[in-house]
Formats: sequence, structure tokens, C-alpha cells
Amino acid sequence: MSKISPLSGFPELLPAQRAVEREVIASVSRTFELHGFANIETRVVEPIDRLAKGGEVDKEIYVLQRIAAEPDAKADLGLHFDLTVPFARYVLEHAGHLEFPFRRFQVQPAWRGERPQEGRYRQFTQADVDIVGRDELPFHHDVEVMSVMVDALGRLPIPRVSFQFNNRKLIQGFYRGLGIDDVTDAIRVIDKLDKLPADEVAAMLVERVGTTPEQAQRCLELATIRVADTSFVEQVRALGVTDELLEQGLAELAAVVEGCRAVAGDRVGVEANLRIARGLDYYTGTVVEIFMEGYERLKSVGGGGRYDALASDGRTTYPGVGVSFGVSRTLIPLIADGVLSGSRPVPSAVLVALNTEDDRAASTRVAAALRARDIACEVAPSPAKFGKQIRYAERRGIPFVWFVQPDAGADDLRGQVKDIRTGEQVGADPSTWTPPEADVRPSIISTARTTATSETEENQ
Amino acid sequence: MSKISPLSGFPELLPAQRAVEREVIASVSRTFELHGFANIETRVVEPIDRLAKGGEVDKEIYVLQRIAAEPDAKADLGLHFDLTVPFARYVLEHAGHLEFPFRRFQVQPAWRGERPQEGRYRQFTQADVDIVGRDELPFHHDVEVMSVMVDALGRLPIPRVSFQFNNRKLIQGFYRGLGIDDVTDAIRVIDKLDKLPADEVAAMLVERVGTTPEQAQRCLELATIRVADTSFVEQVRALGVTDELLEQGLAELAAVVEGCRAVAGDRVGVEANLRIARGLDYYTGTVVEIFMEGYERLKSVGGGGRYDALASDGRTTYPGVGVSFGVSRTLIPLIADGVLSGSRPVPSAVLVALNTEDDRAASTRVAAALRARDIACEVAPSPAKFGKQIRYAERRGIPFVWFVQPDAGADDLRGQVKDIRTGEQVGADPSTWTPPEADVRPSIISTARTTATSETEENQ
Repeated sequence: MSKISPLSGFPELLPAQRAVEREVIASVSRTFELHGFANIETRVVEPIDRLAKGGEVDKEIYVLQRIAAEPDAKADLGLHFDLTVPFARYVLEHAGHLEFPFRRFQVQPAWRGERPQEGRYRQFTQADVDIVGRDELPFHHDVEVMSVMVDALGRLPIPRVSFQFNNRKLIQGFYRGLGIDDVTDAIRVIDKLDKLPADEVAAMLVERVGTTPEQAQRCLELATIRVADTSFVEQVRALGVTDELLEQGLAELAAVVEGCRAVAGDRVGVEANLRIARGLDYYTGTVVEIFMEGYERLKSVGGGGRYDALASDGRTTYPGVGVSFGVSRTLIPLIADGVLSGSRPVPSAVLVALNTEDDRAASTRVAAALRARDIACEVAPSPAKFGKQIRYAERRGIPFVWFVQPDAGADDLRGQVKDIRTGEQVGADPSTWTPPEADVRPSIISTARTTATSETEENQ
Repeated sequence: MSKISPLSGFPELLPAQRAVEREVIASVSRTFELHGFANIETRVVEPIDRLAKGGEVDKEIYVLQRIAAEPDAKADLGLHFDLTVPFARYVLEHAGHLEFPFRRFQVQPAWRGERPQEGRYRQFTQADVDIVGRDELPFHHDVEVMSVMVDALGRLPIPRVSFQFNNRKLIQGFYRGLGIDDVTDAIRVIDKLDKLPADEVAAMLVERVGTTPEQAQRCLELATIRVADTSFVEQVRALGVTDELLEQGLAELAAVVEGCRAVAGDRVGVEANLRIARGLDYYTGTVVEIFMEGYERLKSVGGGGRYDALASDGRTTYPGVGVSFGVSRTLIPLIADGVLSGSRPVPSAVLVALNTEDDRAASTRVAAALRARDIACEVAPSPAKFGKQIRYAERRGIPFVWFVQPDAGADDLRGQVKDIRTGEQVGADPSTWTPPEADVRPSIISTARTTATSETEENQ
């Protein structure tokens, strides 16, 4: 048997770290539910030809085969590499049983065989929220779904995130208004602005896309516009390009920025950043990339946008708008850096001590009484000296130890409870005693939260 | 692209059905936490040689390979087919960071390439709870972990389940006391009792295992003992076999049955069934199979037991005891049969109606006020006639529609709220109005619950 060693790209969390991930998933899920989004899960496999993008199969797909398959059998299933492809298939497959617009969220792992690095894993969890219409989907859902993710991430104890919005209609309309023929190609070149200096990009626009130097200059000017309000509208207009699609894009982007600013608290930035293009293939309107302060090296920790044909069965088209949050990409680096940690590795708030092994039933009764009141607890594994039992609790971060009355009958469960952090010990009855709210469940300890608070205070 | 059609063995749930699964997972998880078990997740892949059982690789394993791998590259990873193998590896890999005894639960999918049938799927979710010690694990944890699963399943609105316990020491000690040499082989033959008549099994014991007809008869008598209390101890003793290991097994089984009976309410049966053997390989003491009333055709819906060497790294051995509940195996047939259904396919308790599209901000403010008080809601997608908006809510099972005051300012969010089931409409303020507790979240509608209650009443 192979030696036990971690598999690169398949990170695993220790119990206290997993408690962090669990709380984060519970928090974003609850926010999505408050906004009326239903949870679904899809199977993790899809036919390989469905995982193909634009006819080309992504090289990072993991294919699946039964070990007992014939040696020359063609593998026809692969693990999904995101949650959008399976969701589109789910909508087509189950359309007859869904109500449209269909609002769903999905939190599941996905797999990519790419080279692992910080923030990029071979197995990673994403949280996606989307609204899908049948035949049509009014624009206001763009504002809605983006606001929901702003709301969700704003509630997390992570460093400040920034939603950077753009709109494909705006870019396309602007380029068209400028008289550039190959809009798609121009966007592809402009997309290199984060790697190449502006003058090189301008030269490429002239050489490859065939723009005039004047047009190239305008494209660069558009791409440098980045503001935290709707003043981009005037800045774009000042560039002197007129086009109907451009106007529509400006209005949509302004509405998204305004709508998201209305729900963004201190923890979330909202900007129009006219350099964001986000792939070329299926986005048709709103696009967004989410970045995290101090973690720009991770590139985006989320993103999404509007796609006028999320799915189609030939007769019906399903337009959608959605946004994805990279749970693993965000949390694993934050946990590794000590920004986020769990307050304890166990759910127990109380260790019920044991007087003697024969007395286990008495301790079990006290534990049952606490559980009946929704207090998580466990009974000590052995009747060691109380000092040793207390250290057992200490090592697990269990804040309270309950001492059972040695001679009490089954009806009288009163005992003593000790806060092992302060040493304070009081008489208590398991049918009435309650731990402080902060000790009831494991919680997330975040240094980002502290930092954010002091920043906020400085800003005031 | 392939036509959309379901993949056999990979069932998917519609939103209201998924709500059932989610509530069930939340319920068992909460029970495990109340008993001090920490949640972990493991990566879904393991090295293939680790997935091998006793040196032999299970033919049902799905192997994984990057689609870009060389044609003759050897696949070395497979999807896990249960949660025990990855858990054992997790314990070994992370032992230095865990506190023992380590109490964990795990709810994740697993994959097997077997032929799909009712209750058996190629992707299925399990909920496992285990306690693992380092070098030693006192027996009382057997009682504890089984009681936890009894408690967890007793809280679910599923048909009555029955925990059928046995103990490997009891069987082995009895056979040894009878003078049978090949205990393992004898158990393998006795295991056929659910397929073959008793006299054929007796004949096989004589022919294959080399027992005397007398010994064979005693084995059959042991295997037919099945009681719902500890009276099996006297019944076994009456068979006149004495053995030290047998005595230990009797005492352990009696303790497990008594401990589980103490927490089992009306919804759970607890029995000693001396025919349960549960595989031969790694169980060394307590064994259990869980059956569900009316669904005996599914075979067991859960099972587990004691293994003295869950994992070992050569120097240290980690004994464990645990039990697994087949979430998919149980729920998918119950949902298909209509025994369980979700009360609605969306989390929203309220649809906030829309007066005009220009008035969307007013409806959004009301929705935000409700969400601030933890009430899930959504705003109507379009300012259709109110009758149409009410039908929108009806189709989604949303119980309340909120009508916004047309001319109200941003400070006055009072409006009217209608229970669309009764037609009752009242004036309400989103900062104080609360839906009835039963309407706050989607819930599970269970016909099993009703049946069970009437059965209980009949029994009284």
C-alpha cells in the first residue's frame, strides 16, 4: 500500500478548519435562502461531450471509467469542472418540473486537473447563485443576483472584497461606435492590459485587429475608467463615441453599480471597472470579477455575469444571470495564513466528567438533559482524575466541565459546572443552565474582522 | 452534443425533494453535533491501491484520469466507494493534529460502478459517525456511537427503523466452544440463511466446514435467536456452550441492546439478532444492520460495527467503532413513493408584490426589512395584475403575498399581507409582522409520521 502522504491539489481541512468552512457555507446559503433561492445539487458527472466548450474539450477534465471496463472502452463520463455546465443541463433535463424564473443556489465541489498552486486546487468547492428564465429574463434580475452575492459576502468575516463590474454591451457598443470591425478580437487584445504595458497593447490593436492608432487610443482610454459610483457614464460619454448598444450598456452598468452600492456595507467595495471582460464566449451583458483585499495574487475569488443563452434545447432558450464564489480558493489561503480559524475543533460546549466507570449512567443522564436543551456535550471517556479530565476538555477547546453529584438519584441531576478558562465553578441544573451565547457553537475567529473594524473606525 | 437524458444510477432531486434531503442531513448532523462529534470532509479521491480491499481491487471502483493524460499512462486515483476507507487514511495522515478518541461524522457522496436498482445508485450520499482511539478504545464507545445513530434516526420522519445487533465475539466464541475449527468459514455458510432453507445450510456446514450434524444444529439454533431485549443471554446459555470469548460477546451485546433501548423512542426498534454477521473482514465485536419497516426489499439502510484495526501505520493501531446511514438509499425510494415530500420548492415565505416596475425600489425595501428579521422572501418578477402575481406565489407554494402601499415614503413600509391559502388579508408592518412558525421554512411532509403515530396509538 502506498505511503500516506497528501495529494497535491486535494487539500483537506482539520476539524477546526472545517468548522470555519462549514460556518461560511451555512452563512452564504442562508443569505441565498433569505433572497428566495432554492438549493439544488447535481450529480458530479456529465457526458464528456457536454463538458466540451465550444466543441473543444478542456484538457483539465478528469474522465471516469469503471476499473473493470474493457481496456479499449471509450470513457464517456467526466467530473464537472464548474457548476454552470451541470446547472444548464439540469435546467434542460428538468425544465418541465421547474418554475421560471428559476432561482437556485448550489454549493458543491468541482474538479480540474490543472497544476495546483495557492488558491487553485484539483478539487475545490464553489457557491453559485443564478436566476434563469424561459425565453426571456428581465434585466432587473442582473441587479438582484449581484446584490445577493454582495449581501452574502458582506456578512462573512473575510478581508474586504471588491466587486468590479462591467457590461459586454457597453464594450461592444463602444467598439462598434468607434468603427472597429472585429470587436471580439479587440477585447481579447485589451484583456492583455494586466500583463503588458499600454503602448504595447495599443500597437497590437493596430497590428492584429487593424484599428487606427486613434481607435486604439480610445480603447485604452475606455479600459482605464474605474470608479466606485456611476460617474463612469459621463467619463465614457466624454470619449465622444455614440452607439445605441453602448447607451444600453451604460444604463445597465449604472443600475448594477447603484443597486449593489445600496446593499454593500463597509465590507464590500463596488466599482465599475471598464477593463473587466471576463472571457469571450457566453457573457452578453453584465460581467463581474470579485477580488479580495490583500489577496490580489489569487486573481478573482469569484465572478459571473449575464448570458442570454445559458441553455437551449433547440426550441427554447434559457437566458440566465449568476455569480460564483470560490469557497476553497478564498478560505484555504485565509486559513493557511491564520486569518481565519475555528474557535474549537469539536461542537461540544460541555464535557460531562465521570466519577467512576460504574457511574457512567449518571453522567449520560446529565448529557441527555443538556442535549434536550440543544447544548452539545460529551461524556468523559474514562474516570481519570478530574485534573486529567479537565485537560481532556482543554485540549479540545471545550469551555465547560460538568461535575456530577456522586450520590444523586436519577431524578436529581444537579451538579457543578466549571468554566475552565476562568476556573469559576457554580452549582447548576442541566434542565436550566445555559452556556453564554458565544460558547454554544464553534465560531470563526477572524483577524480580518478586527482589522476591518479598525479601518472602519479610522474612516469615520 | 448528446441528447439530454437521465444517467442511470445518478439520481437528481427537484428543488422540493432536495429540501427534504437537506432537512434530513441537517437533522442527523445536528444530532451528531449534540453528541460531540465534529464534522470533517475528505477529498473524494484515493490512491487505487488504498481502495483495494485485502489486496483485491473492487471491480466497482471508478478510476480517474486527466483527459490529457498519455494513452498508456497508468491511472492511480479512484473515487472512494465508502467513507470508511478515506476516513481511515485521514486518521493516519492527520493523526499528529487530532485528539484521540477522535469523534467525527461525515456526510458525503461515494461512487460505485455497480448495476443501478432501487436503493442502489452509482452516486449516493452516506452519513457516517465513528469514534476512533489510538492504541485502545474502551468498549463503552460501542454503546455510545450506536445510541447516537438510534437518537439521530429516531428524530427523522421516516418509517420505523430497526437496529439489529450482534457481536462477532459472541459468534466466534460460540463456534469455538462448540469445537468448530474454521469459524470464519462457518460464519460464511450461516450467512446464507436468508437465501437457503435451514436444512440445506446445515448440510453445507457438515460437508464444507466439516462440522458434526450436532454442531451444525447448534449453529442454526444460535442463528435463529432474535429478541428485543437481553433475554438472548439466557437463550444462548441454554444451548450449553461455554467459552470465555462467548461470555464477553454476550455481555457486550447485552450492554449495546440495553444502552440503545434507553434512547430508542417509538420510531426505532432495537433487537439482538444473532444471525447478523456483516461481512467477515474487519469487524471484531459489535455489528449492526439497520432495516426500515415496509422497505425490507432495500436490505439494510445502514450498518456498522467495531473494528480493532480501522487503520494502522505499522507502529500505531487505531481501533474504531462506527455506523453508517445510507441517506440516498433511504430517501430516494421514500421520495419516489411519495412517503416524503417537501412542503414547497422555494425557501421564500413571502412574495412581495410589485405595483409598477418603477415602484420596484419600494418592494425591494419591504423585502430587505423582512430579510433583516430572517424571513425569506422574493420580489415579484414583473408588475403583472395582482391575480397573476398571486398565482406566481401559488405555483411555488409561497404562502404569503405582501402588497406594498403605492404612495408610501421610504420610511413607512406598512402594507397588506395576504395568506393566499385562506384569502385572509391584514395590514402589516415588515418590521414586526412574522409568519406562523410552520411557514417560516420549507418542511418535510411525511406520510410515515402519520402512520407511525396511529400505530403507536393502537399499541397503547
